[in-house]
Amino acid sequence: MTPLQQARQAAVDARARYRAGLVAPSAGQAPGLTQANMITLPREWAYDFLLFAQRNPQACPVLDVTEPGSYSTFLAEGADLRTDLPAYRVWRDGQLAEEVSDVREHWAQHDDLVSFLIGCSFTFEADLINAGIDVRHISQGCNVPMYRTNKLCRPAGRLHGEMVVSMRPIAAERVADAARITARYPGVHGAPVHVGEPALLGIDDLTRPDFGDAVTLKPGEIPVFWACGVTPQAVVMASKVPFAISHAPGHMFITDIADSYYHV
Amino acid sequence: MTPLQQARQAAVDARARYRAGLVAPSAGQAPGLTQANMITLPREWAYDFLLFAQRNPQACPVLDVTEPGSYSTFLAEGADLRTDLPAYRVWRDGQLAEEVSDVREHWAQHDDLVSFLIGCSFTFEADLINAGIDVRHISQGCNVPMYRTNKLCRPAGRLHGEMVVSMRPIAAERVADAARITARYPGVHGAPVHVGEPALLGIDDLTRPDFGDAVTLKPGEIPVFWACGVTPQAVVMASKVPFAISHAPGHMFITDIADSYYHV
Repeated sequence: MTPLQQARQAAVDARARYRAGLVAPSAGQAPGLTQANMITLPREWAYDFLLFAQRNPQACPVLDVTEPGSYSTFLAEGADLRTDLPAYRVWRDGQLAEEVSDVREHWAQHDDLVSFLIGCSFTFEADLINAGIDVRHISQGCNVPMYRTNKLCRPAGRLHGEMVVSMRPIAAERVADAARITARYPGVHGAPVHVGEPALLGIDDLTRPDFGDAVTLKPGEIPVFWACGVTPQAVVMASKVPFAISHAPGHMFITDIADSYYHV
Repeated sequence: MTPLQQARQAAVDARARYRAGLVAPSAGQAPGLTQANMITLPREWAYDFLLFAQRNPQACPVLDVTEPGSYSTFLAEGADLRTDLPAYRVWRDGQLAEEVSDVREHWAQHDDLVSFLIGCSFTFEADLINAGIDVRHISQGCNVPMYRTNKLCRPAGRLHGEMVVSMRPIAAERVADAARITARYPGVHGAPVHVGEPALLGIDDLTRPDFGDAVTLKPGEIPVFWACGVTPQAVVMASKVPFAISHAPGHMFITDIADSYYHV
């Protein structure tokens, strides 16, 4: 088997484990293949969301949109979006209602759900590491820290809200490299949206992320912020969307698409 | 004034001339600023089109979507999309009904038109020229040749059709450079979709383009094809959309956005 075929077999195996009930962060699984955020909404909300994504491409780069009622995606043949993510969040009226490992029951109550699969910054992390840049949450073995910000997204229809960002501490002399490398992945959040000065984003305390885990910021390192695919969840909350399903932060959908596909 | 301010003044002036009735191809106007294709549809078709664009990002890279009924865009403050393009095509039931220089009357008959502004390959041509690559339709002073192909787009809802491509003859030893340079503009069609062998795209005769003008292919040159923002017009035709307005090929909307904004 070629390395790509091996990675795809690892993706099939990982999705089968999640389908069988495993709940675990997906980072590091099927390396070389793109992982995706998911947000699922009734068809009646789909245009607003797709427009929101178009207007906020750094936070919401759309990799695929399913047909209403369908739970399959061209990103991974044979995958079932109701079962093949490690963990889901169910949202009602903008509130987190439950966190579950399977949403077949919820899906059965709606006949026109549309799923949006959204790029994830995991895709460019291998390139950062290969360039000798330490990706702290990987070297510390935890989830990436994510923060709500005061940075308003461009609204679309009934949807509005603030951008969520992920943060990676980068040595001052490598910040430009990190910007340059990630800029060439516009389909998976692209270049940083903010470098240094967390207070300007409304982030008071880097040690208390809103999602994921805190990581160590060493002397000489600058906190660098990328738009994050958890933004749709903040938007669902802010906009009081009646019903939505999302992945649980860090518990992504593993696709069959090579990371390199998104490199420009 | 800075060069950007000068270019923006040139854009304001050009839009005013088109508003006053001038009909002329827009190539070369307000150099340094992005020009856009336009397709305008009733709100009831907007989701299908936005989804079509998401599924066919090389042909339909969306730069902005207007609110239903609105004719303003954040791409150019104060511009009026009903009058500020040099020429429009009006489509009924998938047929070209008329070509006009002002669509205020047509607009008045619909209260919920949504306009999609789509990237144009003019954006990367300055970079090609600066790299010493001859852009033939510019050096020959004519419109870029565009061809319908046999390459099916991914359908979305009621919308389907074949990709339209633009063609530039490139010296064999510069084809890789042309691919590399344009790849970094994914928001304005990006890398070529096809290099050489027009017959494989279903193009029988390069001297007879479906839109625009034929250009000379010199010995040692390879025809290089990029996805084209005229694709939505082919889709309107193939899908028999009841009503649509578009720009006339080569008669683009001049925005206030610097070309460099779309460089990755």
